[in-house]
Amino acid sequence: MAKSTTFFLLNCSLVLLVLFNGCMGQGRITKQGNQCQFDRLTALEPTNRIQAEGGLTEVWDTQDQQFQCSGVSVVRRTIEPNGLLLPSFTSGPELIYIEQGRGISGLMIPGCPESFESMSQQQFGEERMERGQMRGGSYQDQHQKIRHLRQGDIFALPSGVAHWAYNHGDEPLVAIVLIDTSNQANQLDKDYPRRFYLAGKPQQEHGQHQYRAGESQRGERGTGNVFSGFDTRTLAESFGVSEEIAQRLQAEQDDRGNIVRVQEGLHVIKPPSRSWEEREQRRGSRYNGLEETICSARLSQNIDDPSKADIYTPEAGRLTSINSFNLPILSYLHLSAEKGVLYRNGIMAPHYTLNAHTIVYGVRGRGRIQIVNSQGNSVFDDELRQGQLVVVPQNYAVIKQATDEGFEWVGFKTCYNAMIQTLAGRTSAIRAMPVEVISNIYQISREQAYRLKFSRSETTLFRSEGQAYQRRLDA
Amino acid sequence: MAKSTTFFLLNCSLVLLVLFNGCMGQGRITKQGNQCQFDRLTALEPTNRIQAEGGLTEVWDTQDQQFQCSGVSVVRRTIEPNGLLLPSFTSGPELIYIEQGRGISGLMIPGCPESFESMSQQQFGEERMERGQMRGGSYQDQHQKIRHLRQGDIFALPSGVAHWAYNHGDEPLVAIVLIDTSNQANQLDKDYPRRFYLAGKPQQEHGQHQYRAGESQRGERGTGNVFSGFDTRTLAESFGVSEEIAQRLQAEQDDRGNIVRVQEGLHVIKPPSRSWEEREQRRGSRYNGLEETICSARLSQNIDDPSKADIYTPEAGRLTSINSFNLPILSYLHLSAEKGVLYRNGIMAPHYTLNAHTIVYGVRGRGRIQIVNSQGNSVFDDELRQGQLVVVPQNYAVIKQATDEGFEWVGFKTCYNAMIQTLAGRTSAIRAMPVEVISNIYQISREQAYRLKFSRSETTLFRSEGQAYQRRLDA
Amino acid sequence: MAKSTTFFLLNCSLVLLVLFNGCMGQGRITKQGNQCQFDRLTALEPTNRIQAEGGLTEVWDTQDQQFQCSGVSVVRRTIEPNGLLLPSFTSGPELIYIEQGRGISGLMIPGCPESFESMSQQQFGEERMERGQMRGGSYQDQHQKIRHLRQGDIFALPSGVAHWAYNHGDEPLVAIVLIDTSNQANQLDKDYPRRFYLAGKPQQEHGQHQYRAGESQRGERGTGNVFSGFDTRTLAESFGVSEEIAQRLQAEQDDRGNIVRVQEGLHVIKPPSRSWEEREQRRGSRYNGLEETICSARLSQNIDDPSKADIYTPEAGRLTSINSFNLPILSYLHLSAEKGVLYRNGIMAPHYTLNAHTIVYGVRGRGRIQIVNSQGNSVFDDELRQGQLVVVPQNYAVIKQATDEGFEWVGFKTCYNAMIQTLAGRTSAIRAMPVEVISNIYQISREQAYRLKFSRSETTLFRSEGQAYQRRLDA
Repeated sequence: MAKSTTFFLLNCSLVLLVLFNGCMGQGRITKQGNQCQFDRLTALEPTNRIQAEGGLTEVWDTQDQQFQCSGVSVVRRTIEPNGLLLPSFTSGPELIYIEQGRGISGLMIPGCPESFESMSQQQFGEERMERGQMRGGSYQDQHQKIRHLRQGDIFALPSGVAHWAYNHGDEPLVAIVLIDTSNQANQLDKDYPRRFYLAGKPQQEHGQHQYRAGESQRGERGTGNVFSGFDTRTLAESFGVSEEIAQRLQAEQDDRGNIVRVQEGLHVIKPPSRSWEEREQRRGSRYNGLEETICSARLSQNIDDPSKADIYTPEAGRLTSINSFNLPILSYLHLSAEKGVLYRNGIMAPHYTLNAHTIVYGVRGRGRIQIVNSQGNSVFDDELRQGQLVVVPQNYAVIKQATDEGFEWVGFKTCYNAMIQTLAGRTSAIRAMPVEVISNIYQISREQAYRLKFSRSETTLFRSEGQAYQRRLDA
Repeated sequence: MAKSTTFFLLNCSLVLLVLFNGCMGQGRITKQGNQCQFDRLTALEPTNRIQAEGGLTEVWDTQDQQFQCSGVSVVRRTIEPNGLLLPSFTSGPELIYIEQGRGISGLMIPGCPESFESMSQQQFGEERMERGQMRGGSYQDQHQKIRHLRQGDIFALPSGVAHWAYNHGDEPLVAIVLIDTSNQANQLDKDYPRRFYLAGKPQQEHGQHQYRAGESQRGERGTGNVFSGFDTRTLAESFGVSEEIAQRLQAEQDDRGNIVRVQEGLHVIKPPSRSWEEREQRRGSRYNGLEETICSARLSQNIDDPSKADIYTPEAGRLTSINSFNLPILSYLHLSAEKGVLYRNGIMAPHYTLNAHTIVYGVRGRGRIQIVNSQGNSVFDDELRQGQLVVVPQNYAVIKQATDEGFEWVGFKTCYNAMIQTLAGRTSAIRAMPVEVISNIYQISREQAYRLKFSRSETTLFRSEGQAYQRRLDA
Repeated sequence: MAKSTTFFLLNCSLVLLVLFNGCMGQGRITKQGNQCQFDRLTALEPTNRIQAEGGLTEVWDTQDQQFQCSGVSVVRRTIEPNGLLLPSFTSGPELIYIEQGRGISGLMIPGCPESFESMSQQQFGEERMERGQMRGGSYQDQHQKIRHLRQGDIFALPSGVAHWAYNHGDEPLVAIVLIDTSNQANQLDKDYPRRFYLAGKPQQEHGQHQYRAGESQRGERGTGNVFSGFDTRTLAESFGVSEEIAQRLQAEQDDRGNIVRVQEGLHVIKPPSRSWEEREQRRGSRYNGLEETICSARLSQNIDDPSKADIYTPEAGRLTSINSFNLPILSYLHLSAEKGVLYRNGIMAPHYTLNAHTIVYGVRGRGRIQIVNSQGNSVFDDELRQGQLVVVPQNYAVIKQATDEGFEWVGFKTCYNAMIQTLAGRTSAIRAMPVEVISNIYQISREQAYRLKFSRSETTLFRSEGQAYQRRLDA
């Protein structure tokens, strides 16, 4: 009884908090002044490609006004089968959408136990290790929890937490990675993210864009990882190893880039059974707002699963949100996400987001997007295709329409509980106003006002009566 | 038992939070560096007037240093009887003081029910509406809660929530509207507020000030509302109405401005009985820190009612505060307010606000205000008259004195629980120090120190022994 | 039962909050863009000395990039025996480390009772005071709580709270004072702190540095305290005293500076018995996360006490942290601290701080510090000596090594629960990774990877196998 009362109170409080403030304690720090009018938006594609041994990183230009003004950076990573992304961390949190493939990832969270044990067949000859236990020629390894990645997952990474990822599938693992540089957690540069690698000698993803204008006091190629700058002898002593091994940490000779190829595949890790993930999901639905400990906190949720749609109109499409209510860790990252699917003829009602910018990435098909600013000017009216990206600023009104191919997108939002207000349909702002008010403000008869208010009975996603939108822009 | 224990804990926590941090999670982002010395303050009046069909909007210059450095904007709205302010929202929260008159306002909060029903006598002929129910020639309307506005109310508006207002009284409805652009909730420009209208074609209030220096890429007149920039056909489809009605939404031909006149008055809305407001107030006093749901959250509180004064000295005046303790929604807006009334001969003790700027607006009479900075320099020593405004920066010491007319002001504060420290009188900083310390720091005898510490037994508001302050500045 | 359940819930929530986000609601606002690369750090010493009658203030140059980019300012105060620091407050919170000596301090917290009473032998002749009570020629004084300062204390001062300090010991009282100007609580300049004095006519500590470049619209000498700028007559009326005493408040003639000498010592205050402090500490260990009221909140904790070390390796040294878990008020200041002691031959493992900058001040001996940025470049590799200071930016990797003198430092951190990730030793990031991953990312054999992972069994502090570090830099 005591418990449930408490829950009740905490929940009420949470609701108030989330519904009205939007982003308590957010304090996003972005470019200011006349530089950020958001008066002209364009569909953006990556401007830089960094090829590594085991995969590819495509980088959107961090200096673009849309990123500078929304305070985020985006890269698309393609990890080939058997590719291993070197461990790294950033000074701002990351929100990742797995566009394709499957893999595993390991996080290094300070203070969490090495709760996964594995046994290797590898023999070490005579030598006995100090800590690990040798059993009949093989050794036992212990490490922190391994997490699964699969198509459709939204994966949340707190800032400063190092992690690696490995593609153990048969097709490329493609991930859209958003880094929130304006996040309060980032006390370093707000202009571009810094990625700290724990191994290898990777090129900085955002480095060379940063210094277009000639300033090149920092090399175009990465000079190394966090170990590279230390005195080799000190490093060797710190680890209790030879200087030769310390040099390997510093990776002077490593030119494989940030994604390396594991020749024979990564064997030792025994991923839990397939049903493990289902259990994770089920556990999610019993979620009480407070995970048991941070070490076992759920960091991902699948956003592609049609059965979990929040809004569904059979003839128009579906919309799924992942926010602090279904993935609690997001309240600490101050980010959330939505996945939208519009069928041919589908329209997403005119709406605005009260408390967040939305970074819209085209996942499949093509959609026409119209965006309008506070002065009623159209700042974007164009198609967004698969692989393109556009920023919808906070409070700007937007309409999305599928082309005859249909349209799928993922939206990253700069608030842990981004909230939209629709302007047409049930639950819309128009429905909230008395007919008499509508009649007066739009100078129409009460009858017309009544029709304007009640014609659309669907919520958010509508089926267009006319033909699907056809691109006539370049005709 | 469980419940009360929990309350106790939550309350304790709240006290700690509010008392000491002041503004947890505030993160105000204002102009930085040498631009914001606050070294010379002046009493400001509106610099721009925007006349509309049904009323007037007077705008204080957002570019003025006092506003830029405190991160707020202020307008004064005068809505004539039967005037209707078009629905709009801003990217920062608003705190409104009703200086005169009475009216009603409707908010459009996403997810809240249309809980008010009204019946209209209007006949629609043969046609039957899809959703609304026709009963004997009249129709039934449903819309969200209507709220009352009356003189002395402080009204809190979360950012992004659209709202309209209507003057149903006999005298002009005058409102002082503060918009907190530096608020964390605002992820758009921190320099000036953006108002998004849902109807009409109003001029941007802060637009033309913004671009004094010649840049006029945006017209001086508003080009429209949030619907104006959409393709008319798409809009018509979204609402399921004809393109003619969609054009009315886009308001190409509307030149009535942001306040329109309702010819025969707004009839349909049946405001609740007079006692409803009293009930609201009573409910407020039972407030448990957690409103039932956001949809029924109290958004206003009367600050003029003498019976609710927090500090009252019969010979000097009274002071009333509205903060997160008596209007909980303010903790999400990060704003609060005070109302001060000084009688002839009244003095408000020298004091400073620990955790907030205070935007002081003269409501009645004239007062002399002295403001001193960290170096002991006087940065303001002048009269503030009705309709004028001055910003008292955080931590700056201030004394207010009534003239022989008396002085009334409202202060908007950039913290949900702004806290003042008085420097004279009971509860003052001087009272907190040992006499020996006072004696040593001011180089006075213990006897003098004793007198300095204990002479004034009143709290905050004193009666001057001499004559009322007379303006001799321009003599 | 109800109570414990509630605690459990609150604690869980707290853990999640603190562990993962680091600094909920921080929103630090520091210099942006290319100015803050932190690409070259240097050991800093104070650049300005302000001598006062009763002591000395040494000021680090606030304009230095390391301070501008971490958003803090630092001064070292030396209060001579019988010296009294005039009451003052700042617009950002202060975190203070008592390097030497002992004293007392009084805070003036609005709304808190005058809970200390003292009786003076001083006679006032015939006159009877209005408020105080005269008893047989002596008088009774009441004032707010007096707090003790002693070597090794970390003292937390909320922004805007005025306080004085007095050295009642026999040796100088030396305090390192960090002011967090980028703190959310500060709504004034983020570039340099403003100190408001309630008495005297002290020089602004950061004023003259601020205006090197010629702008001297503000004098190099302080023009006074918060009372100086008021009209003397108004001030006299406010306090109910003569204009002569009001002039003493304004301190026109006072040239003693910010620390004054108390000729016969400060007598009246009877500090509680020695055991009082022990009781305070014990109370701390029973701390329930919620202090009873803010007026009795614990504001200090000793960080030098070896028995309270968090990490201790007999051959290498010890490390103690003070954060929101053991000094709850820090969660409202968004600051924390660590004290490190490295014996001769001691090494602090390579590590980074996930969520805070660290301002490292050398307390004793000399240490070699190596700092590496995100590109693997060494940005600092030098000795830090007693009295010097260096800023270790968030996420930058760092190794500390004692010289043969040993090394002691105090670190101020810009987060209420700064969290480090070690890169070597038990609990390190390397331990969290599977051996197979280590082998692949560093291109070493599994055997070498195993050794790299398990060689060091200590946590954080290691004993160097070789000789203690000897400075060869200038050889």
